[in-house]
Amino acid sequence: MTGRVIINVGDGKGKTTAAMGTVVRALGQGFKVAAFQFMKGSIPTGEVKILEAHGAVVHRLGTGFSWTKESWDEDRQMAAQGWAKAKQAITGGEFDLILLDEINYVIGYGLLDAAEVAEVIKNRPKKLHVILTGRGLAEPLADIADTITEMKPIKHAYEAGIPATKGIEF
Amino acid sequence: MTGRVIINVGDGKGKTTAAMGTVVRALGQGFKVAAFQFMKGSIPTGEVKILEAHGAVVHRLGTGFSWTKESWDEDRQMAAQGWAKAKQAITGGEFDLILLDEINYVIGYGLLDAAEVAEVIKNRPKKLHVILTGRGLAEPLADIADTITEMKPIKHAYEAGIPATKGIEF
Repeated sequence: MTGRVIINVGDGKGKTTAAMGTVVRALGQGFKVAAFQFMKGSIPTGEVKILEAHGAVVHRLGTGFSWTKESWDEDRQMAAQGWAKAKQAITGGEFDLILLDEINYVIGYGLLDAAEVAEVIKNRPKKLHVILTGRGLAEPLADIADTITEMKPIKHAYEAGIPATKGIEF
Repeated sequence: MTGRVIINVGDGKGKTTAAMGTVVRALGQGFKVAAFQFMKGSIPTGEVKILEAHGAVVHRLGTGFSWTKESWDEDRQMAAQGWAKAKQAITGGEFDLILLDEINYVIGYGLLDAAEVAEVIKNRPKKLHVILTGRGLAEPLADIADTITEMKPIKHAYEAGIPATKGIEF
């Protein structure tokens, strides 16, 4: 069976969370899983511990990405380093499923090249599944995905003034 | 902090999966979690084992819901029994987060009354978070939710003739 390419996009909740659910599903099936967090803290520590307890390899990459600063050099460098690691995992053949969390966001900010990421994923080992999350859908990635889901907010707690909640948003 | 009411709806992938991600998040924060599966097999066995390993209580309810049969009596009875158990957990005060998986679907088929479910959730212990998933959004539930996310398929593997994949869809 050919590996899947799944993208979770949109402004709604659940892009990373749904990916985490799929990671747990894959771990439940005995898959070897690696997760790359392209934004610091995108997967809370407690979850990381649960994933690791079941054999997942979790990489924390990137800075906090404060989008207001003047220079992007450091972020660009960290994104490139993170991508180099992820690329190694994608091409290496060791894993059954690789999560590239928030990579869409990083691509959207021009810190990684969508065409290169797409090319590497396209030429992955046949059985490998890849999940990409984050706001912003780059065309080269949309082209190679078999499943794209938009998480669309219909009603959003933040707008109602409800603060981020422990155990739910973090 | 007041408990949240979160609904995942829509035709896309990720309603149950995103909820599973939130359950893992909550477990990672040390929450006491109960999950009620209103459709048989909605959460694969491997995942159930991981959740249970981290202290979640998972209830398997319902039949396989074959929608073509002549009589709904058995399904209605099983839904009612499942709801009675869930109601007990919601009102009991033992849990921090309760997942009612596929309950929207069961409500949509008239096997449970949306207004009653909404009333019980509305009067829950203050700190309790509740997540509801499944296609179909009943108005009484939409009214009491603080967060509703539609999982909207933009590109869907099934339509491209890709079969359900182990570790991804099941």
